[in-house]
Amino acid sequence: MPWFPLDLNASLRVIDIVGTLAFSMSGALLGVRKRFDLFGVLVLGCVTAVGGGAIRDTLTGNTPPLFLRDETYLWVAILGSLAAFAFGIRLARFERAISLFDTLGLGLFAAAGALGALRLREVGITLGPLGVTFAGMLSGVGGGIVRDLLAHEVPEVLYRRDQLYATAAAGGALAVYLLHGHVPDLEAQLMGAGVVVLLRWLSRRGWVQLPVRRLPEG
Amino acid sequence: MPWFPLDLNASLRVIDIVGTLAFSMSGALLGVRKRFDLFGVLVLGCVTAVGGGAIRDTLTGNTPPLFLRDETYLWVAILGSLAAFAFGIRLARFERAISLFDTLGLGLFAAAGALGALRLREVGITLGPLGVTFAGMLSGVGGGIVRDLLAHEVPEVLYRRDQLYATAAAGGALAVYLLHGHVPDLEAQLMGAGVVVLLRWLSRRGWVQLPVRRLPEG
Amino acid sequence: MPWFPLDLNASLRVIDIVGTLAFSMSGALLGVRKRFDLFGVLVLGCVTAVGGGAIRDTLTGNTPPLFLRDETYLWVAILGSLAAFAFGIRLARFERAISLFDTLGLGLFAAAGALGALRLREVGITLGPLGVTFAGMLSGVGGGIVRDLLAHEVPEVLYRRDQLYATAAAGGALAVYLLHGHVPDLEAQLMGAGVVVLLRWLSRRGWVQLPVRRLPEG
Repeated sequence: MPWFPLDLNASLRVIDIVGTLAFSMSGALLGVRKRFDLFGVLVLGCVTAVGGGAIRDTLTGNTPPLFLRDETYLWVAILGSLAAFAFGIRLARFERAISLFDTLGLGLFAAAGALGALRLREVGITLGPLGVTFAGMLSGVGGGIVRDLLAHEVPEVLYRRDQLYATAAAGGALAVYLLHGHVPDLEAQLMGAGVVVLLRWLSRRGWVQLPVRRLPEG
Repeated sequence: MPWFPLDLNASLRVIDIVGTLAFSMSGALLGVRKRFDLFGVLVLGCVTAVGGGAIRDTLTGNTPPLFLRDETYLWVAILGSLAAFAFGIRLARFERAISLFDTLGLGLFAAAGALGALRLREVGITLGPLGVTFAGMLSGVGGGIVRDLLAHEVPEVLYRRDQLYATAAAGGALAVYLLHGHVPDLEAQLMGAGVVVLLRWLSRRGWVQLPVRRLPEG
Repeated sequence: MPWFPLDLNASLRVIDIVGTLAFSMSGALLGVRKRFDLFGVLVLGCVTAVGGGAIRDTLTGNTPPLFLRDETYLWVAILGSLAAFAFGIRLARFERAISLFDTLGLGLFAAAGALGALRLREVGITLGPLGVTFAGMLSGVGGGIVRDLLAHEVPEVLYRRDQLYATAAAGGALAVYLLHGHVPDLEAQLMGAGVVVLLRWLSRRGWVQLPVRRLPEG
């Protein structure tokens, strides 16, 4: 029995919605900083918010993607974007806010993507650890990549050399793979998202780092 | 009874083909301006032309996308690209030509995308106003985004601050949603495309504008 | 009877794996040159390696894409990326190595994409020469486009004006279309890949070139 009184599907939905809200604010704040107009901010917020889920659904053959079938996601993304637009002056000064929402969205979507890949078992397709990790990672980083490409920013995914990003998403997805079957899906998903947040925090503190190949100049 | 003697499917096809031609010329002219070779111009023209439809078909689970199953679209895109290549010297001086074709393609594909999303009802999937608007908008702006990404230009979609672009596509898609069921599909589609062109024209005139969030410098 | 003792499916798999290895090294070497950390290099290598196949599978409605269902591809991509990371210092000096692997991957994936499109006949969807050529070309250039977009490089696909690139991929795909049914699929695929390599080599030698539309300055 899960440790709080929500049934599984309702809980997954809640998680998806919180991730959607987080990513929409992250995308909208970037739009505000780049001085897009109101609609541009809305579009960037929405596309960032639904990008990860769209990649997850397309990869698992689940079309049309959930965000088109369930209006809630787009409404949530619009609300998050409007909030970011309204409070932009204050929020934009705090890069940390963008970053925090981004990390939350990253974790929640990476875990949801991994679980989505694992659930292909129900239609007879069993993915291994690498496939689940990769699908989860792409679902996690997809929204941010779309955001950065549309805003013509350098995609953060691979460039944040001082901090783990895609690595953190992959770690969370792998955690979901390992936990799946041992704990309820909901807890696996929350723990997976927690692993992402933890890895990001550890790397920001400088306690976890990855080697860079040093090249001779020229 | 529609106001001209074409059956619905033939008419939709005509519209799709005109949109394909318009977008292929818009893409090819950008390629000419960037001094691509003949094949580069062809590829950019074709990818721009089929990008919107490919997004529409992928989102609605309609694979392989129409442009692969029906050779007409690629032939039309090739013809449009060759025409742009041949007349490039003269056309390239007239930025307006690119812009006009682009607006036409935007309107026709946004309307076709909205209608494609509405038609999922036939397989038991009913999308709401937001889903239809979003799917239509993405179908409309998809070709242009792919064009700009491939040409390493700043995607115009969100940056044309003096003019509505994605907003216009969303407005046209929403119009199709509202008209659907009340008028024949063909007329809904043409009116939706008309709304896009109208919104673009109004914004170019400076009569319609969206607020931009002003940030303090620094 | 094919000219070497492998059954068709095993052979196609071998080809896919060699293409995967080639593209993963091409992507990983670019990551090394851009000083990504170890995981960034791995991700760029893997995404480059599976990008072409993912596009092929998505276009032909074959989801989830093969690279998620068969772990081999990701393992191969990881091995290729690690090798590039380990030997990066020496390899990075030799731009030719990146280019060679890239050409190999281009040829193998363009041919595989064309064959995948032709095989839609088995489910009653017959594509014509343009559709097969386009699907093959996109499968071939897809990995490289994703690589360049993620690394924020100008996509090489259309810009390598001194050399054929997408043209070569299209030529190889068209060759597969023409050969299909006349020779075994495996040989069609190998010959198609050979056409790509040949076209690239001829253009590097300066023996094959495409016209560029000359524009008056200004």
